[in-house]
Amino acid sequence: MRYEHDFLGEMSLPDNVYYGVQTLRAMENFKITRQKLDPVFIQALAMVKKAAAKANIATGRLDKTVGRTIVAAADEVIDGKLHDQFCVDPIQGGAGTSFNMNMNEVLANRALELIGDVKGNYERISPNNHVNMAQSTNDAFPTAVKVCAIRKGGLLITALSNLSAALDKKSREFNSILKMGRTHLQDAVPITLGQEFAAYAASVRRGAGRIDHALLSLRKVNMGATAVGTGLNAEPEYIREVVKQLSQIAGAPLTTAENLVDATNSTDAFADISGAMKITALSLIKIANDFRLMASGPRCGINELLLPARQPGSSIMPGKVNPVIPEVLNQTCYQVIGNDLAVTLGVENGQFELNVMEPVMAFNIFNSMTYLTNAVDTFNKLCVQNVQANTAQCQDWLEGSVGIVTALLPHIGYENASLIAKEAYNTGKPVRQIILSQGLLTKEDLDVILSPEEMTQPGIAGKSLLQEKGPLAQLA
Amino acid sequence: MRYEHDFLGEMSLPDNVYYGVQTLRAMENFKITRQKLDPVFIQALAMVKKAAAKANIATGRLDKTVGRTIVAAADEVIDGKLHDQFCVDPIQGGAGTSFNMNMNEVLANRALELIGDVKGNYERISPNNHVNMAQSTNDAFPTAVKVCAIRKGGLLITALSNLSAALDKKSREFNSILKMGRTHLQDAVPITLGQEFAAYAASVRRGAGRIDHALLSLRKVNMGATAVGTGLNAEPEYIREVVKQLSQIAGAPLTTAENLVDATNSTDAFADISGAMKITALSLIKIANDFRLMASGPRCGINELLLPARQPGSSIMPGKVNPVIPEVLNQTCYQVIGNDLAVTLGVENGQFELNVMEPVMAFNIFNSMTYLTNAVDTFNKLCVQNVQANTAQCQDWLEGSVGIVTALLPHIGYENASLIAKEAYNTGKPVRQIILSQGLLTKEDLDVILSPEEMTQPGIAGKSLLQEKGPLAQLA
Amino acid sequence: MRYEHDFLGEMSLPDNVYYGVQTLRAMENFKITRQKLDPVFIQALAMVKKAAAKANIATGRLDKTVGRTIVAAADEVIDGKLHDQFCVDPIQGGAGTSFNMNMNEVLANRALELIGDVKGNYERISPNNHVNMAQSTNDAFPTAVKVCAIRKGGLLITALSNLSAALDKKSREFNSILKMGRTHLQDAVPITLGQEFAAYAASVRRGAGRIDHALLSLRKVNMGATAVGTGLNAEPEYIREVVKQLSQIAGAPLTTAENLVDATNSTDAFADISGAMKITALSLIKIANDFRLMASGPRCGINELLLPARQPGSSIMPGKVNPVIPEVLNQTCYQVIGNDLAVTLGVENGQFELNVMEPVMAFNIFNSMTYLTNAVDTFNKLCVQNVQANTAQCQDWLEGSVGIVTALLPHIGYENASLIAKEAYNTGKPVRQIILSQGLLTKEDLDVILSPEEMTQPGIAGKSLLQEKGPLAQLA
Amino acid sequence: MRYEHDFLGEMSLPDNVYYGVQTLRAMENFKITRQKLDPVFIQALAMVKKAAAKANIATGRLDKTVGRTIVAAADEVIDGKLHDQFCVDPIQGGAGTSFNMNMNEVLANRALELIGDVKGNYERISPNNHVNMAQSTNDAFPTAVKVCAIRKGGLLITALSNLSAALDKKSREFNSILKMGRTHLQDAVPITLGQEFAAYAASVRRGAGRIDHALLSLRKVNMGATAVGTGLNAEPEYIREVVKQLSQIAGAPLTTAENLVDATNSTDAFADISGAMKITALSLIKIANDFRLMASGPRCGINELLLPARQPGSSIMPGKVNPVIPEVLNQTCYQVIGNDLAVTLGVENGQFELNVMEPVMAFNIFNSMTYLTNAVDTFNKLCVQNVQANTAQCQDWLEGSVGIVTALLPHIGYENASLIAKEAYNTGKPVRQIILSQGLLTKEDLDVILSPEEMTQPGIAGKSLLQEKGPLAQLA
Repeated sequence: MRYEHDFLGEMSLPDNVYYGVQTLRAMENFKITRQKLDPVFIQALAMVKKAAAKANIATGRLDKTVGRTIVAAADEVIDGKLHDQFCVDPIQGGAGTSFNMNMNEVLANRALELIGDVKGNYERISPNNHVNMAQSTNDAFPTAVKVCAIRKGGLLITALSNLSAALDKKSREFNSILKMGRTHLQDAVPITLGQEFAAYAASVRRGAGRIDHALLSLRKVNMGATAVGTGLNAEPEYIREVVKQLSQIAGAPLTTAENLVDATNSTDAFADISGAMKITALSLIKIANDFRLMASGPRCGINELLLPARQPGSSIMPGKVNPVIPEVLNQTCYQVIGNDLAVTLGVENGQFELNVMEPVMAFNIFNSMTYLTNAVDTFNKLCVQNVQANTAQCQDWLEGSVGIVTALLPHIGYENASLIAKEAYNTGKPVRQIILSQGLLTKEDLDVILSPEEMTQPGIAGKSLLQEKGPLAQLA
Repeated sequence: MRYEHDFLGEMSLPDNVYYGVQTLRAMENFKITRQKLDPVFIQALAMVKKAAAKANIATGRLDKTVGRTIVAAADEVIDGKLHDQFCVDPIQGGAGTSFNMNMNEVLANRALELIGDVKGNYERISPNNHVNMAQSTNDAFPTAVKVCAIRKGGLLITALSNLSAALDKKSREFNSILKMGRTHLQDAVPITLGQEFAAYAASVRRGAGRIDHALLSLRKVNMGATAVGTGLNAEPEYIREVVKQLSQIAGAPLTTAENLVDATNSTDAFADISGAMKITALSLIKIANDFRLMASGPRCGINELLLPARQPGSSIMPGKVNPVIPEVLNQTCYQVIGNDLAVTLGVENGQFELNVMEPVMAFNIFNSMTYLTNAVDTFNKLCVQNVQANTAQCQDWLEGSVGIVTALLPHIGYENASLIAKEAYNTGKPVRQIILSQGLLTKEDLDVILSPEEMTQPGIAGKSLLQEKGPLAQLA
Repeated sequence: MRYEHDFLGEMSLPDNVYYGVQTLRAMENFKITRQKLDPVFIQALAMVKKAAAKANIATGRLDKTVGRTIVAAADEVIDGKLHDQFCVDPIQGGAGTSFNMNMNEVLANRALELIGDVKGNYERISPNNHVNMAQSTNDAFPTAVKVCAIRKGGLLITALSNLSAALDKKSREFNSILKMGRTHLQDAVPITLGQEFAAYAASVRRGAGRIDHALLSLRKVNMGATAVGTGLNAEPEYIREVVKQLSQIAGAPLTTAENLVDATNSTDAFADISGAMKITALSLIKIANDFRLMASGPRCGINELLLPARQPGSSIMPGKVNPVIPEVLNQTCYQVIGNDLAVTLGVENGQFELNVMEPVMAFNIFNSMTYLTNAVDTFNKLCVQNVQANTAQCQDWLEGSVGIVTALLPHIGYENASLIAKEAYNTGKPVRQIILSQGLLTKEDLDVILSPEEMTQPGIAGKSLLQEKGPLAQLA
Repeated sequence: MRYEHDFLGEMSLPDNVYYGVQTLRAMENFKITRQKLDPVFIQALAMVKKAAAKANIATGRLDKTVGRTIVAAADEVIDGKLHDQFCVDPIQGGAGTSFNMNMNEVLANRALELIGDVKGNYERISPNNHVNMAQSTNDAFPTAVKVCAIRKGGLLITALSNLSAALDKKSREFNSILKMGRTHLQDAVPITLGQEFAAYAASVRRGAGRIDHALLSLRKVNMGATAVGTGLNAEPEYIREVVKQLSQIAGAPLTTAENLVDATNSTDAFADISGAMKITALSLIKIANDFRLMASGPRCGINELLLPARQPGSSIMPGKVNPVIPEVLNQTCYQVIGNDLAVTLGVENGQFELNVMEPVMAFNIFNSMTYLTNAVDTFNKLCVQNVQANTAQCQDWLEGSVGIVTALLPHIGYENASLIAKEAYNTGKPVRQIILSQGLLTKEDLDVILSPEEMTQPGIAGKSLLQEKGPLAQLA
């Protein structure tokens, strides 16, 4: 048992723990989610401390031996060690002070140990005076959140890019599968399944780009802002150096924000990244929903797409296979959208020189990144990569449809086409037959107009005929 | 042209307008939505003023002649007159002061006119000293919002009740139409279309009840709270009387809130009514989506439901008829859910003795009530009442399905049933045929088990057989 | 190593695990949040299985020995044992099938063990045929969610009631502390700190009542609905019995929903409970914000309230103590509101006979209940119970204020009062002095009107004076 | 009275109206909001029709005389004429078909009139065959929404830029006003009011940039996609030409989307622009809240900022002036955030080749743009431009504060600083005096360290002293 005190009094700590009195207070104060901290965040905060120590050595403010030992301790945390010493709740008051002090205390004590001293001898290496030198929670914490989000965001972008590539591959595979296009869930005009998958790929790719763009603004950090953005206690040389060091350590091209006061009290960059995930989630929901609709059936639904069977679908209905993978993607996306509202409310509630709600923003951004990356990977590997087209069903639907009448529009006009469509619906007769029986077009004309190529590429299906006979000649 | 002043200075007003200087300032200050005020709200606020005047006459604080003339002016507004004199923007700062002063000024000037005096002679009848006597915006305005919401909410409940009744009627009409039930958009077990519609009716009815319950808490008003809930300048006799009067005028059993300080700074009752609409909207979305799915096709979809054709569906695809009425219901529900978030943010942001964000709450609650009432009525009259079942299609789907195998579970066990289902899917053979060829059950047994009545009512389909042979005898 | 198969094939399982092949598939399929299941939910689902086994014994469908062994296994889970065997992710596809099968498999294998048989001998005790008898995931899972929510919701209500009681106690303690009331963050009229705390208590109490009301509708369960609500394979006697048994086991008066089809595909009851938490969170945010505002300072803010110091407030600013407990309450409330949107989106997306998004609803409802209970307890114990009033500061503010002029309104009229207020603001002179120097009221009159009792209770301050002199006599 | 028919039957129309049967059906079907269409949208849709007509003339498909007359009719609408002929509800089913047909009908009839023919003679100029030539609602409508959003978004950007400039100007004006910086609403370290305003300006500027970036993706239009994105009935030359024409007419560099199928069924670009407004609203809320906090008082609050008085603040409290302009900005921002959720839900609900929920997206995007532009202009002109600093109050607060102790940290260490802060809080003694009495620093040292320049610019306040004496020399 060792004893530590702060200006509120003394507390006892087990000998073996590396954290100190302020972590202990935080553990008593914040028992909300009881979730563990994201390990990538723990690493990111250690990177910030390492960068600060190196910068403080460089400016001569920090004793070299002390500084290098802090760096060594930080490296251990970056390597994944001592993570069990980070025990504060991810949702916490104090704007992240407890994250910051937890790290300051663990690094100070580990550094003391490395240097051969005993834990708690803060006169030699102090959490505040040395590890936290030239920093405030108000710059160190949000900077660590950004470094963490950049790293985790990269994984999400990779997952989205992989999904997009898989959809593109399937798009090529499904390139020649003609099917009925649907708008309003109603039969419209023909399209290929490949065209649909190419569109999915494009929207996922746009999602990856959107997140990438949002991550850009996270590269602007407020290290050196200290408490309120004025940079009190942080020298200009330190400010330049710490961002340079952190860029190298984190492997990301960070820069010092143009206006440190703004960068300390504004958290719109967190709303940007959360919002980018939200909107990408919306695109994914659309794809998952389409998959579920196209896989509906197998006997009493659309049944155009065969999803890989992943598990028995029911505890009571034998043989049932459900679209469980798109379903879990959907639900993960709902979570991401809900998380975005929590972030939104956090961002809404800054006051004066600080937004103290940053912990709840970080919690939700990290969770959304983790969950969405997992769900996108799951959807890619356990569904998209092995999805099969039900070509026969696609063909069957198309052959019985009325929607092809739109292709005849330039040849017979909207009014005639409407009448034919109506007759087809009412009598069940094929469109072709009605056209022929009314003598509106010849069989040869129809064959040209209604070929798959003519119908699914830009242009007037059967344009050559029009050029011979003049536009809407039939209407005359 | 006449001139009025307040403590910020003098302004000129056209002779013919009934509003005064404070309304004019508000018109200059708040040019946000440029929407008109809800007429029901204008009437509700006039009711509050009438009630206050009567209560102030009763306590002897207000001169009878002045009071009765104010009542007469208020009655005109309640009758729908002078509504063009209410020109302030529905989204406004000042926590509704401009609504209140607009009404105070219009009533004072109209009362002066009725009494034979000239507009603006506020020494005789003053917007503040007489019309607003014993009131503050902070009690008069939220009370008027509640009265308005109770009245508009009643219309919404009626619309929902009518929709529920129409769905119930259709439920009876569709009672014998057997169809495939679907879970996960996958074929499950049989159900009747009537059972589905009865469930829709039940959920809509629950929505009406939910809104009714939320309206209950709006009956507690804070008249007499004046500025901060302490009741400064409002005598106990007045407080008793004003609520009694307002109940009579508004035709709603209002009561004085138990804690007037709470009732003045808390706006959770507005979140309750908005939330009740939001959740009801979720139920309506589900119904609209089911309608759209069941009406999908006509050739390449589920096609179990025939919606009344309301308009040509496409400017380019002839003969197309889209489910435009469920679509507009969906969108209206999205609006209601969005509006609820605006209300939520308003409620979030009260401080100390007042929540100054009440105008945006009122704006969204009233809009949601109007839009949702309209959309529910539209859905009821232009869709539900004339929806038709496609009985033949329901039957076709069912006959080809595998889902009936669940009914065999108690007779042959989950494992056997799974194998049969798998074979049916793989070979396309009917379930019946496989069962018979494997000798698991006799034709007579199957006829009993798979009858519609046995399959859509609680109980084990073919239980009589089990009783003869013992549970799962076939598994032995 | 043992082997199990389902209709998708065979898989190997470690000998020591109690779950089976379907749990294993789910573990491979759903790696999203990597969170553990809520232990109360695990218990609730075991309660459902116990109730079903007892009901199936009662109807004679389930062999007594098998049934009693399943009950014994379920009792172990209810007692907190075997919880490490529940390994499926809380966000999962399949509408909870994996929760249900995880429980079915664990109970079947534990029952086999209890009966002296080996794990996996499902011919003797089967997860599907015996443990899941007469059930579907579609009734067992949502019923368990409801039982869990009722139990966890009870804890939340207790926490809110305790908070409300603590606020009430403080209200009495602060009863005589007169302070400036504020609207629009502007000085308004006097109020007591006790009145403010009584209002907080009332709004928290209303929150508890709101949650209690929402829990009521969760008492209606759909046990017996089986797959789509038609009750296929669930006998009427069983349906009656299972709810009776579950009520006893869970200690909650559950009833069978009136319409089982509706109760199976409608999830609005989940939106209700989530919405009730959201709105209660809004009330808590308001209280937390007021605490933070009143504690602002200590030198450069309002400084009327002294929050218990819980931890050093800054890693860089010595001596700083921040309102960390209200801050963590705020953030928890944002999380609850975000979670509610995730629930909302889940509820939005039901289709036909089922809403497959129930897992994400359950995840968020349970998290919100846990987090909010913890945050409310924290706020109560670590802040409210030891909050102190800064009486001297309250008095100082009040003495310098102009707001008392409102109390003079019935005596001198709105116009005079405005002029006096304006002069007070411009000159800095006390209101009393201006009144006296203008001869509008005597010192004696002022002493009566401006006494604390007169100013913070309903009624006209100094009414006795008016009765002597007639209303607004001074205006004449 | 004239008669028109479509494939659903015949309807009568007043002679004087320019719209036709399909508009009439839409007016009967959609009575939801009863709001008028945004005039900028009407113009944008007319621009689309003009561009299409010119492109169709260019490709030779449309008769020149007919085409030029359509262009002339469209020009009238672009000039603001005939706007009363657009009567369909902004929330409508049919994915905008009714907007499109309303425009097609008005232009056809006006063109017929211009050409000397009678309204309704659609054989000569047809709404579908001529005005809608080579188009579908599914490309024409979203393209018009984008053109409208680009134009309205430009106005919003201008408003934000003006606000940003006004804040910058005030920032320079307030450059030398030293005040207490606050974090957690607690006194922190000194800052200047100018620094705060510069931060506001920066965050508003970032908002303008965010919206500008989101508008970029709206420049990609799907003209030529026709019904499902395959371009059926739209020739490649037409596709090239129509976007070129529309760019010229709309004055915006539009391009054809890379993937027309994606561009037709994906609406994430609408979520992007709505989300950009939402996040910008969050920044504005923060500024409005800070204004309200800094203007709190005047006697019992922070009182550092003097907002221009815009209207009497209370109907009952004389002399009260409320921060009504920031309040209305706040509420408008809540509306924008709520609208964003409505857009989000719309974007969520696309299916297959189309998202039919585009009307509700357009409605909310346009409303948010209008309201936010108005509120930003209002805040700028009626508040920011005339806001005054209360310099004396800023100084008073600062002089009494303890926060300056942070500047001493590098000189005396965190522990000593904490003790001094504690003593200052407990005894009320000034920090300077305690330091001097304890002999920790000399008066001369303190004068250097605590100068305004040293405290509000990056660096160690009093660094020169440290360089003489070595870091933390005092700690030894």
